[in-house]
Amino acid sequence: MSEENRAWLLISRPESYFSKDNVKFETIPLPELSKGGFLVRNIWISFDPTQLNWMKRDTYIEKIEIGDPVRSINVGQVVKSNNSKFKVGDIVTGMFGWQDYSISDGSYVDHVIPIPSLNPPWYSLSLFGITGMSAYFGVKDIGRVKEGERFVVSSAAGSVGSIAGQICKIIGARVVGIAGGQEKCKWVINELGFDDCIDYQSENVSQRLSEIFPEGIDVYFDNVGGEILDNILTKIRMKGRIILSGAISSYGSQNFYPLRNYRFLTTRRARMEGFIVTDYYERFGEAYKQLRAWVTDGRIRQKEQLFRGLERAPDIFMNLFTGKNFGKQILQITDYP
Amino acid sequence: MSEENRAWLLISRPESYFSKDNVKFETIPLPELSKGGFLVRNIWISFDPTQLNWMKRDTYIEKIEIGDPVRSINVGQVVKSNNSKFKVGDIVTGMFGWQDYSISDGSYVDHVIPIPSLNPPWYSLSLFGITGMSAYFGVKDIGRVKEGERFVVSSAAGSVGSIAGQICKIIGARVVGIAGGQEKCKWVINELGFDDCIDYQSENVSQRLSEIFPEGIDVYFDNVGGEILDNILTKIRMKGRIILSGAISSYGSQNFYPLRNYRFLTTRRARMEGFIVTDYYERFGEAYKQLRAWVTDGRIRQKEQLFRGLERAPDIFMNLFTGKNFGKQILQITDYP
Repeated sequence: MSEENRAWLLISRPESYFSKDNVKFETIPLPELSKGGFLVRNIWISFDPTQLNWMKRDTYIEKIEIGDPVRSINVGQVVKSNNSKFKVGDIVTGMFGWQDYSISDGSYVDHVIPIPSLNPPWYSLSLFGITGMSAYFGVKDIGRVKEGERFVVSSAAGSVGSIAGQICKIIGARVVGIAGGQEKCKWVINELGFDDCIDYQSENVSQRLSEIFPEGIDVYFDNVGGEILDNILTKIRMKGRIILSGAISSYGSQNFYPLRNYRFLTTRRARMEGFIVTDYYERFGEAYKQLRAWVTDGRIRQKEQLFRGLERAPDIFMNLFTGKNFGKQILQITDYP
Repeated sequence: MSEENRAWLLISRPESYFSKDNVKFETIPLPELSKGGFLVRNIWISFDPTQLNWMKRDTYIEKIEIGDPVRSINVGQVVKSNNSKFKVGDIVTGMFGWQDYSISDGSYVDHVIPIPSLNPPWYSLSLFGITGMSAYFGVKDIGRVKEGERFVVSSAAGSVGSIAGQICKIIGARVVGIAGGQEKCKWVINELGFDDCIDYQSENVSQRLSEIFPEGIDVYFDNVGGEILDNILTKIRMKGRIILSGAISSYGSQNFYPLRNYRFLTTRRARMEGFIVTDYYERFGEAYKQLRAWVTDGRIRQKEQLFRGLERAPDIFMNLFTGKNFGKQILQITDYP
């Protein structure tokens, strides 16, 4: 086992979007294992927009301290352990960060449950990670989408949006995605079975939505915030729901894009509600079970982009904010045993 | 019975706020009674901010046609009838408008239920009208206010806000009002028993709210929209609720005051939800029963400002938007028999 622990450390807080100047690649010493502690060799790293929040300020979780490794959700293997629950050789997932090795006391660490049809187990960073959980609880608990309803999701080719739309198709809703580029739109329609997809780079989103759903929209799963959200407020139907899952277009700015049309919430008796997927931690089992059944039946597909090499972490993270990602980005930093 | 029917007719749509140029006072003929129709002599007229919406555009209800009497909710007496459900002498409430007499077919008309302790029966325009119903269902169904929670209401001395705050005190919440002027604030604290009240004319609302509720606000009952709503979004607590009942500060403008802080709905897992009280029509009985018990016990008080003379209707309506009203404004246009 290597004694070296390379890590990307946060050295300054992003002012708007993340830049490479905010981090530094260093070799840092590995602390001693305390009683109950264990050492994880990281294999796969997940990239999620909310990491930008963690870098910037306290939100639903404490901010990353300056000088600490960038926090991320990883899958890794236990290589040393003083903890009877986490044995050497176990494959685990937790907030292990952009580094080769991590020390843990077991808080918020889970064993990765093997799914034979989905091997190797990076799926616990996507469909069975906060990505899939966000889609599942957003659609089920906040949106409460019903058969026949008109459902729209932004970042439709993204990791959360693509799952959310597929769940709604299974429910029997009419599903329209919004994505950047013809390639993504084609994938969403042809591979995932969405009813339609609007390319915001080349089409007028508002006009196309009015054409597709002249009677308005029952549920909007918002992954981007900003102008599209403000426009959809004008199209929301009676008793409609807006799921605030993320707001990539606003993560970067100090001043969020202003919403002018929130009064439609009153005239349409509609609801706009935010959620943080970690609140549902106790109910993840319910979602796992359902998603496992769907994925085994081939009713849900997830696209992953696999990269290699820890040194590329900042570049891959930036893709999330430039629309360059297509599906869930996973960084592999060592071989899977 | 007089053959004359004086009426305020809508002759143009308000561009921002209502002005007297939008209406004309005329004597118009009374139509013949059809089969099932009846004639109501109007006694009391209610003034509600939502009437401005009715004048301007189709909303949750059709707009008022140009040339028609201004729509309002009144209490009156049946003076002629071809309808067995509404007999001559009955006291009824309905959307009878700014006029001496109205013809009705019984749609959305109710008998006023006598409450001996509240005589004469204009209470069916306030506590037992859409005012009281808005407060009741807003607090109970949308806000779901619980004992010990921190509750804030704007237009606290207004007809809806004053009832909403009193209901929350009965529930056991900590209740703070926002109102314009020391006189209104004193009334809200001393007469209605609110825990505190902020005078937005002379105090810094944001700063005072932070002093009173340093831990934030669980439920905000919004009657004004705009800047205060945007500020309260930053103070909303985990799982907080914002009840969008009205937005007087925005009724007038084409462009609503932009909300910049809606992202707090996500980090605080909070919900912002609009409602229209007429949706609860089927459940008004439940609210009547509860409010009747409270008002009989002296636990809820309502302030009414009584005016006389149909010719004053436009002036009294305008008070709603200039903050001149104090409690529920009622216009009496003839003697109560």
